Amino acid sequence: MGNSIAVTQACDFILFGTKGDLARRKLLPALYQLDKSELLNPASRIVGVARNDMSYDEFKQLVEKALNEFIKEDLCDETLARFYQRLDYVQVNMAESEDYARFHQAVHPDHVMVNYFSTPPALFGDICKGLADNKLIKENTRVVLEKPIGFSLTSSKVINDVVAQYFQENQIYRIDHYLGKETVQNLVALRFANSLFASKWDNRTIDHVQISVAEEVGIEGRWDYFDKAGQMRDMIQNHLLQVLTLVAMDPPVNLDADSIRDEKVKVLKSLRRINEENIHDTTVRGQYTKGFLKGNEVPGYLEEEGANLDSNSETFVAIRVDIDNWRWAGVPFYLRSGKRMPAKSSEIVVHFKNPPHNLYRDSYRNLPPNKLTIRLQPHEGVDIQMMNKVPGLGQSTRLQTTKLDLSFSDTFKNQRIAEAYERLLYEAMLGNQALFVRRDEVEEAWKWCDGIINAWAETDEAPKSYPAGSWGPVASVALITKDGRSWDE
Amino acid sequence: MGNSIAVTQACDFILFGTKGDLARRKLLPALYQLDKSELLNPASRIVGVARNDMSYDEFKQLVEKALNEFIKEDLCDETLARFYQRLDYVQVNMAESEDYARFHQAVHPDHVMVNYFSTPPALFGDICKGLADNKLIKENTRVVLEKPIGFSLTSSKVINDVVAQYFQENQIYRIDHYLGKETVQNLVALRFANSLFASKWDNRTIDHVQISVAEEVGIEGRWDYFDKAGQMRDMIQNHLLQVLTLVAMDPPVNLDADSIRDEKVKVLKSLRRINEENIHDTTVRGQYTKGFLKGNEVPGYLEEEGANLDSNSETFVAIRVDIDNWRWAGVPFYLRSGKRMPAKSSEIVVHFKNPPHNLYRDSYRNLPPNKLTIRLQPHEGVDIQMMNKVPGLGQSTRLQTTKLDLSFSDTFKNQRIAEAYERLLYEAMLGNQALFVRRDEVEEAWKWCDGIINAWAETDEAPKSYPAGSWGPVASVALITKDGRSWDE
Repeated sequence: MGNSIAVTQACDFILFGTKGDLARRKLLPALYQLDKSELLNPASRIVGVARNDMSYDEFKQLVEKALNEFIKEDLCDETLARFYQRLDYVQVNMAESEDYARFHQAVHPDHVMVNYFSTPPALFGDICKGLADNKLIKENTRVVLEKPIGFSLTSSKVINDVVAQYFQENQIYRIDHYLGKETVQNLVALRFANSLFASKWDNRTIDHVQISVAEEVGIEGRWDYFDKAGQMRDMIQNHLLQVLTLVAMDPPVNLDADSIRDEKVKVLKSLRRINEENIHDTTVRGQYTKGFLKGNEVPGYLEEEGANLDSNSETFVAIRVDIDNWRWAGVPFYLRSGKRMPAKSSEIVVHFKNPPHNLYRDSYRNLPPNKLTIRLQPHEGVDIQMMNKVPGLGQSTRLQTTKLDLSFSDTFKNQRIAEAYERLLYEAMLGNQALFVRRDEVEEAWKWCDGIINAWAETDEAPKSYPAGSWGPVASVALITKDGRSWDE
Repeated sequence: MGNSIAVTQACDFILFGTKGDLARRKLLPALYQLDKSELLNPASRIVGVARNDMSYDEFKQLVEKALNEFIKEDLCDETLARFYQRLDYVQVNMAESEDYARFHQAVHPDHVMVNYFSTPPALFGDICKGLADNKLIKENTRVVLEKPIGFSLTSSKVINDVVAQYFQENQIYRIDHYLGKETVQNLVALRFANSLFASKWDNRTIDHVQISVAEEVGIEGRWDYFDKAGQMRDMIQNHLLQVLTLVAMDPPVNLDADSIRDEKVKVLKSLRRINEENIHDTTVRGQYTKGFLKGNEVPGYLEEEGANLDSNSETFVAIRVDIDNWRWAGVPFYLRSGKRMPAKSSEIVVHFKNPPHNLYRDSYRNLPPNKLTIRLQPHEGVDIQMMNKVPGLGQSTRLQTTKLDLSFSDTFKNQRIAEAYERLLYEAMLGNQALFVRRDEVEEAWKWCDGIINAWAETDEAPKSYPAGSWGPVASVALITKDGRSWDE
């Protein structure tokens, strides 16, 4: 490939929960893509782990099925042959410490061992203990933890404490797959390598920021799991707050993992607390009822399979976030995330302030502001909304908004944009923690979210209904319009 | 057309010099296009004037030939029929006052009379006198003056004084066709309706500005005329300085013609004078020798038809301009204009300063800066050069420059971009002087240019040769590289 990108060290990649949904949909396809891009060390191995008895051939079939199902393009025979040779399977009952001894057959003593815990967090302790009891934890052993890391500050501490008994923080890689997205990565470059933004990324020049993650899907058969969490824990506590910190952080000392994470934590610590006093002014909870999405009738949250009719979990959240620091005083960040929205879309929109004086006031009482939009999905890219003169004669004071556009998929046509999990697995194998969430980040995020969740409980704030296929409860519109602003749609 | 744009008042448009090159190439086609766009008042008339005896039919043939020759698309029969009905021809020996009485037959007493002087300036006085003697000058009579308005401050004053004996400044429309270009018009909107630029258009955020007008053509048979002027008078004194003032001016009180022109004059008054002391550090003169342009051999300036071998007129100028005011202290504007360049292109490039600190210093000793490019021709449009992360895995500190692009012809596909002269004739008929050059602007521009021209003469600065098809003399590169910068090419 003539590729100048670092090939990962020789790794044994241990995939706990290899039969699970995440492994099949995302992790195995991501490993295949890394192999295809020749980013895996030739000696690296991939070891599936589950409690079932499976032969190599059975495991290979499971992998084959997952790749065929979840990789859209044609599979490459050469890559497949190489990939299958890397595979191994180890049967482990996670709670049985002695089972872990079987790894000694499967892993190479000199390899980096990357243990991916794609299991319920309740098992993290057992797995750690099993590895430790069998002397499988060395300096170059790493663990990758899937969310959810708890349901609250307290429960996240329990999980983190368990893992911390066996691993140092620099061995622990907490996944937030949003950090693996190309455009989220590009945020740092956009902010700090462009003086157009670098020098005006504060309350003198920015009016407000909107971060929206809209899902079209509903509960996808996970009613039970989701209902315990709600949208706040499922999306805001991790993905939206992670994006917010990257947008809002001060310039880091350098681009090292901890320098960046230090700045992200500072943002989380600066979030204005939300409690019973300000909960109504700053948050909206919603729950979808039946409605129409792209012309099809879809059931309401309480009509989904397995639903408990008494549930008052939220499937939609809108929050006005204030960041009490020098940079952002007076600049609200509006977060919004919901299920059963009219379209799937994740984006960050930075609304710049208007020029100090409106020369075009005869034609426009309010000039549309400049906006920088960073699209995370679909169509990853960046655009800037500008005002231009309407072309044509006699139009010197007639303006129109136009977009200067950079779509990653258009601009880099010959290049496949890697999936988030490819990037994250690759970085974990390289040993770069920049795209992973540090313990203090998780805990600060929980601290703030717990405040909101508790305030909802203490004020008996029931979710407001919204029909599936709409942009959330009417109150969500009111939340932002009372500030004289409106959602980007 | 359902057009909301103002139709001009009923005008008699008197075209002095109707047989000339400009009339045939630009003015008659522009009038036809305005008629086609239904921007001419139904009662408006177009009166050709020359010294020859011509019948209506002969004049109509002359017009027909010009339209066929210089309008690329198919002519519209309906427009043509209407257009020909507007035509009239008046034979006038410009110096014979009594000939002007013939206009009383051709013009309507209630119409606005727009007199376009497409003649040598030596005739302006005669024409004014002829009109005045025959009581043809009223409050709603206007004159449109073509360049050159003189060859120096002194000679421009002579011309302006002559015209001022008969017309008030608010009746005088001095053409600089660059002011009619769509993207030049858009400059004002770009600067003042976009806070991304409005709030950072000064020496804190901008490193320097380049304004380049490169012509592919040589002298086009006008050796004699051009040789008396040189590139300084032919291009810099008018087009480039006009563009510079629009880029550099302070925000005007409002968008009225005089508010804008007040600010433009302030810029001209702030230009640091160039004299014998700083001429070598701030200017480069060039003259082309024979060379190759797009694979064809082309003659040198002194080998063109009609050339005087002793000529030391310049066909290329590069200047470092300093603007001594609060906004631009320390921000040079580099002007460059030449004939027989490798490509035809006019553009303004605003180079922003780099971010205060380079986080990417391990990969880039110097980050490429953000640049705003305003293309006047070809392909009128705007783009912003940004830095983005190189997409792909393991590329978190690898950046690349990418362009966010707004091409007017792509974006407004259904819309023809009007030629500069269409806009200018239209504005003159509307009575809007914003796109025309006020007397004090012309004179301030001459004052500054005279300083350079005189310093060249007094220091015997001969033009440096450059081969046709190159970007000018080597000294032009040195002019900017000694400041640690380079020309955009």
